[in-house]
Amino acid sequence: MSESEFENLEEPVAANGLLHRRVFLAQSAAWLGAGASSLLIARPARGQNVREVPPWMRVPGAPMSGYGSRARFEEPVQRSTGSAPGTDGAGASRTPLEHLEGIITPSALHFERHHSGIPDIDPDAHRLLIHGLVDRPLFFDLNALSRYPMVSRIQFLECSGNSRAAGLVPEPIAGGCGALHGLVSCSEWTGVPLSILLDEAGVDPDAQWILAEGSDAASMSRSVPMAKAMDDAMVALYQNGERLRPGNGYPMRLFLPGYEGNMSVKWLRRIKVTAGPTMTKDETSKYTELLADGTSLLFTFPMGVKSVITSPSPGLVLQGPGLYEISGLAWSGAGRISRVEVSADGGTTWGEAALSEPVLDKAVTRFRMAWRWNGAPAVIKSRAVDETGAVQPTRDALIAEKGMNFAYHYNGIQSWNIDADNQVTHTYA
Amino acid sequence: MSESEFENLEEPVAANGLLHRRVFLAQSAAWLGAGASSLLIARPARGQNVREVPPWMRVPGAPMSGYGSRARFEEPVQRSTGSAPGTDGAGASRTPLEHLEGIITPSALHFERHHSGIPDIDPDAHRLLIHGLVDRPLFFDLNALSRYPMVSRIQFLECSGNSRAAGLVPEPIAGGCGALHGLVSCSEWTGVPLSILLDEAGVDPDAQWILAEGSDAASMSRSVPMAKAMDDAMVALYQNGERLRPGNGYPMRLFLPGYEGNMSVKWLRRIKVTAGPTMTKDETSKYTELLADGTSLLFTFPMGVKSVITSPSPGLVLQGPGLYEISGLAWSGAGRISRVEVSADGGTTWGEAALSEPVLDKAVTRFRMAWRWNGAPAVIKSRAVDETGAVQPTRDALIAEKGMNFAYHYNGIQSWNIDADNQVTHTYA
Repeated sequence: MSESEFENLEEPVAANGLLHRRVFLAQSAAWLGAGASSLLIARPARGQNVREVPPWMRVPGAPMSGYGSRARFEEPVQRSTGSAPGTDGAGASRTPLEHLEGIITPSALHFERHHSGIPDIDPDAHRLLIHGLVDRPLFFDLNALSRYPMVSRIQFLECSGNSRAAGLVPEPIAGGCGALHGLVSCSEWTGVPLSILLDEAGVDPDAQWILAEGSDAASMSRSVPMAKAMDDAMVALYQNGERLRPGNGYPMRLFLPGYEGNMSVKWLRRIKVTAGPTMTKDETSKYTELLADGTSLLFTFPMGVKSVITSPSPGLVLQGPGLYEISGLAWSGAGRISRVEVSADGGTTWGEAALSEPVLDKAVTRFRMAWRWNGAPAVIKSRAVDETGAVQPTRDALIAEKGMNFAYHYNGIQSWNIDADNQVTHTYA
Repeated sequence: MSESEFENLEEPVAANGLLHRRVFLAQSAAWLGAGASSLLIARPARGQNVREVPPWMRVPGAPMSGYGSRARFEEPVQRSTGSAPGTDGAGASRTPLEHLEGIITPSALHFERHHSGIPDIDPDAHRLLIHGLVDRPLFFDLNALSRYPMVSRIQFLECSGNSRAAGLVPEPIAGGCGALHGLVSCSEWTGVPLSILLDEAGVDPDAQWILAEGSDAASMSRSVPMAKAMDDAMVALYQNGERLRPGNGYPMRLFLPGYEGNMSVKWLRRIKVTAGPTMTKDETSKYTELLADGTSLLFTFPMGVKSVITSPSPGLVLQGPGLYEISGLAWSGAGRISRVEVSADGGTTWGEAALSEPVLDKAVTRFRMAWRWNGAPAVIKSRAVDETGAVQPTRDALIAEKGMNFAYHYNGIQSWNIDADNQVTHTYA
């Protein structure tokens, strides 16, 4: 490849080293190739014997197992957990986004938000009741549910309180990407469409809502519009191929694609068909957005369009000037992600990132962008656009609109500051 | 919904109760609804108090954890394992397909095939060497590799010896779907395209092959055509979001979409660029197909088009006549699945199954079909067609072509026998 072709491939699309996404195309792989001055190449270190046989090749390895586990070296990768004072089960655990890649969150690291801990449910004794404004109340055990047609979908789940600490405090607090934004995860969910079960029960034409109740000690309960229940709601039985984990609703949960996470009621035990919303404690005393004028928004269901750069991010240290891949996640409760833009100059100029296939409805989408860092301080940020045209807002715009106390559905643009000493920190710049 | 509309929705597409896939469309959900004679409805049992609060709602639940685990009730779901005599690490563990749903295999249940156990590799000490017919040998540690652009893809991996016991013995042996066909799994893999690393090293234009060597005690080694290495091969670092598991190549493996599993060399330590194939022990004394005339096929790389019904399958007991969902997996090393047909009369008539989105290149695809079982003995089977038009063959056709000893790449149609007493067994019928 000639020097001029190489120059063409490494085409800037925004200031401060952001490169056009076509460098990711397979046929442009040579963009890292010979001839350039700042190649990222690993050569044998002086004194390294490249043909030395490592110790683990000299002995037979470990045997097979029925249920595998991760490498002992990976054990530091953990969710960060926190509970309300005096409890150990009313709180949250957050996905360590900075340590993960792709779009699937391993179930062991899926975020959790519990209101009174994780119940230890015997699946053979668990029942789902459908009653209220129906022709005939129905009662399903797991065997009966498993007879129904199922659907599978890869979709995100996000706690409505996610990212609150990343944007709704006066000064940027220190924290990693997962600690600040880790109340979002993405799995393949499989279950029975709720519409089928409601049709079995026979819904009164005047019924406009349902109530969903969980089988935890908090009786977590939310009202859901009938239109959503009849659209893409499912009673999920499987997550990432296997049965739901206890922390995610074993043996069954409601799953409402795109809606705030707490409405996807875990340990689902009861669906009551109702004329209007039930106004439960979980939708009146909690999960409302307090505005600057003292009023509160009720029933703000879909999660907004949002993105975050997972790498580089705080806790991941750069290795000096050179080529890097900026990688992150984007998602929207309104549908598919259509575009993600990245800035390396604090938001003055933006370039379009590459989106990894598959780009799915109400799933997280992995975006990637090549960046030639010159070693000077930089502020990087990402901005997502969904298929409805909705654009992820700035923190300033959100606060101007809703004040500092709305607490839920914060989807402001996240900025990471990169210092000349390779450190990455949270900033509002 | 009137009786006549209901009849329309439940439209037979093949003999013995197979129903048209449009019954899965959301707007046709009422197909199970009121008015039909054999409804699948769960009503409260006599004496059940539907409002009774279960014991797990009366006490606070368990606390959060850093790394979650599955429910204690699910512990019987395990891979079946087996090793060569005198070893505990030279063998295989098989995915329990009959207990899983969707297309993602949880990493803890992904199949494994080892030739001398699982090495305990320190990721900081592991290196990947690229050498041979290159301009400059290169040596990568994990940090260097992590700087390169990555790709993520949801794709299957299948051992070339999968299903041998399901078709290449004279009489059908008893076994569950996973025990017979569980050397196939599907994950989201993320890593660096091998083409980028080879371009970094600068490949000699005359080099037509590479050798890939693993860092296990067996030095598992395979030759791979350069065309595949430069196409969609990757050095995988992540599986289902987190770092590879030790049983699947931690900290890095080759991943060759669609090719027989053993070529996706685990614990990858060396890529040697070569003029021709190296003819390693693993591609001459093993992994060749012995034909009836005594000759052997060498280098049969892509896995054929294939499918299997996972439910109902042996070990899962039916609950008497009525509606069931037939569910299974289909895949092809040549690309996307375009169609799956199901028969409930032993292969005389076939109806087209519904394919769950997403249908991805070289991934497993979940198919589903509604079946109204009349309670009489039946033989069910599935037949997959891929986007190249290749059709999954019958067992008889395969044996007529290649004899009984080819041992690898068996992709014959699988038949399950269902008895009037609700039992499911393996059959050649």
